[in-house]
Amino acid sequence: MIASATNKPLKSVTIAVDAMGGDHGIKTTVPAAARALREHPQLMLILVGDREILEQALVKNKLDQDPRISIHHASQVVEMDESPSLALRNKKDSSMRVAINLVKEGQAQACVSAGNTGALMATSRFVLKTLPGIDRPAIVYAIPGVNQATGERTAIHMLDLGANVDCTAEHLFQFAIMGSVRRSLIDNIPKPRVALLNIGEEEMKGVENIKEAAKLIAACPSLHYVGFVEGNDLFGNKADVIVCDGFIGNIALKTAEGTAKYISYMVKDAFTCNWLNRICAFLAIPALVKIKKNLDMRRYNGASFVGLKGIVVKSHGGADEVGFSCAITEALAEVDKNIPNQIHATVEAILGQPNGS
Amino acid sequence: MIASATNKPLKSVTIAVDAMGGDHGIKTTVPAAARALREHPQLMLILVGDREILEQALVKNKLDQDPRISIHHASQVVEMDESPSLALRNKKDSSMRVAINLVKEGQAQACVSAGNTGALMATSRFVLKTLPGIDRPAIVYAIPGVNQATGERTAIHMLDLGANVDCTAEHLFQFAIMGSVRRSLIDNIPKPRVALLNIGEEEMKGVENIKEAAKLIAACPSLHYVGFVEGNDLFGNKADVIVCDGFIGNIALKTAEGTAKYISYMVKDAFTCNWLNRICAFLAIPALVKIKKNLDMRRYNGASFVGLKGIVVKSHGGADEVGFSCAITEALAEVDKNIPNQIHATVEAILGQPNGS
Repeated sequence: MIASATNKPLKSVTIAVDAMGGDHGIKTTVPAAARALREHPQLMLILVGDREILEQALVKNKLDQDPRISIHHASQVVEMDESPSLALRNKKDSSMRVAINLVKEGQAQACVSAGNTGALMATSRFVLKTLPGIDRPAIVYAIPGVNQATGERTAIHMLDLGANVDCTAEHLFQFAIMGSVRRSLIDNIPKPRVALLNIGEEEMKGVENIKEAAKLIAACPSLHYVGFVEGNDLFGNKADVIVCDGFIGNIALKTAEGTAKYISYMVKDAFTCNWLNRICAFLAIPALVKIKKNLDMRRYNGASFVGLKGIVVKSHGGADEVGFSCAITEALAEVDKNIPNQIHATVEAILGQPNGS
Repeated sequence: MIASATNKPLKSVTIAVDAMGGDHGIKTTVPAAARALREHPQLMLILVGDREILEQALVKNKLDQDPRISIHHASQVVEMDESPSLALRNKKDSSMRVAINLVKEGQAQACVSAGNTGALMATSRFVLKTLPGIDRPAIVYAIPGVNQATGERTAIHMLDLGANVDCTAEHLFQFAIMGSVRRSLIDNIPKPRVALLNIGEEEMKGVENIKEAAKLIAACPSLHYVGFVEGNDLFGNKADVIVCDGFIGNIALKTAEGTAKYISYMVKDAFTCNWLNRICAFLAIPALVKIKKNLDMRRYNGASFVGLKGIVVKSHGGADEVGFSCAITEALAEVDKNIPNQIHATVEAILGQPNGS
């Protein structure tokens, strides 16, 4: 037990970090680990990867004497473009697989990786298994939201964001339960508003599985269903949890990224197209920095895998130190809130599934 | 024949305008008609709607003596939230239906409406019929694109954007042909780059119909297939035409709108949060105006229905005068390029469909 700044004792939490994963590997993961350790006194980290490389990185980052960080050797690395099934079959000693094994074995309470999403999902599912009553795990991600009338900032938890391309109504219903439980616990919202992502045209209001899922969610007294939302509601304040299949979720999230990138380019272009505008840009630096900060997706970096018998957080492959440490913070919050067990309990209460699968 | 400013004779073009459609009806459509007439000397307009109301609006807009504008009476209006099938059945004298009838009868060469998209599509399909070889019409829309390396601005034609929620590989293939022909003619691109919108994860690269459509498009020598693109490529420069089903297209387009709205809010907020920033905003007005102009979706307003035996352009329901006149300009370009016949000829050449259906 460690005492926090407010003297409330904090239970120590151990997180396994796939130190070799992501576009930048240890160049990002080790400094991010250092940052997370500074921020969270209760945190213990196990860096998983090549021992020799990691030992050097710890020295370089002045972490070699820190008792809260340790190394667990793994001889292989899953490549970012590697096929998930091949990674699962051939990379049994990868930093990713070993980090997940540590969760399975109870040596760590969560795992964080910036590696190949497909391989991480396939391996997590294979090693940890899904919770009883859950057919498929999903990827949930917090996108920023704002109530444009009041200026109030919020977050919207979207799922699934790419784990499942074809979903039945039952899968979407399960996502709704998991998203609602997680949002409720993470942000202390008693009954989060749950919506389904759909298109708005009359008579073609989405495909059958979405219509059917709407009925299931609306009929569930544990969920606060608020109906369909459309793509233009994503960054608003109409729902606390937005449910969709992984194909739609991935398209929506990446479209938002692409739009933000396009607009950032336009802003930069507008402020540099002539000398007058450049002078304005100089004067407007505080505002431009504020805009950049608000659009900074790194702060919303950790995507969680829900529906597994263990906690796995996926950091963006290209995340920097701040982004990756945010993913560690996300994992810590999930441990703190005991998300998988809480999801299990709720699913059991709603679906009446037998204990254990 | 009318002489343009360059003395090149322009063939006069008659367009039927659903004057009652859209969120603002004649308050938008009549001023937009005046604007379009000023811009295009070859243009003739038939305003369709309640004669009495339209006569007053023409006087108000100083168009009552203009020989290039006429009124065609229609006693009904399709409501924005009306069911397409009910509108089709019960509103046989609606401004929308009558405007489309004028195209069918050859009195107008195209129709423009800001009304209910579902009703406009259902009515257009019922009255005009699809081209031989085309199973389903699609909605195509030009989104802005930029090559961030060179700064070169472009447009990307996306289809379908909401007409068809479930598409087979053959439907997507037909969309690819239609999009390619249209883009080629509108922007004089000999062989536009055609891409399919998909998600990037290995081993879950989209659903079967998209994979199958990729094979069909890649095997067609008339098309220049460049592979899959993801949501974050939408405002880039990887393709000239992006093909997807109407559900995905609608989600992507509306997500982009939502993201732009969110960012605009953040920009405004950043420049007004304190007095220093407000002064900066004042100085930065030229840059902010430029950003607003570049993000102005009204300029990309007209969405075309392709695959029909006639030209129908859908303006955004909430379009203002500029937006609606852009939709008229879009229709004019389609008439000029003879899009339906050109699509027909290409489809026939590729698919070897019999003439007439």
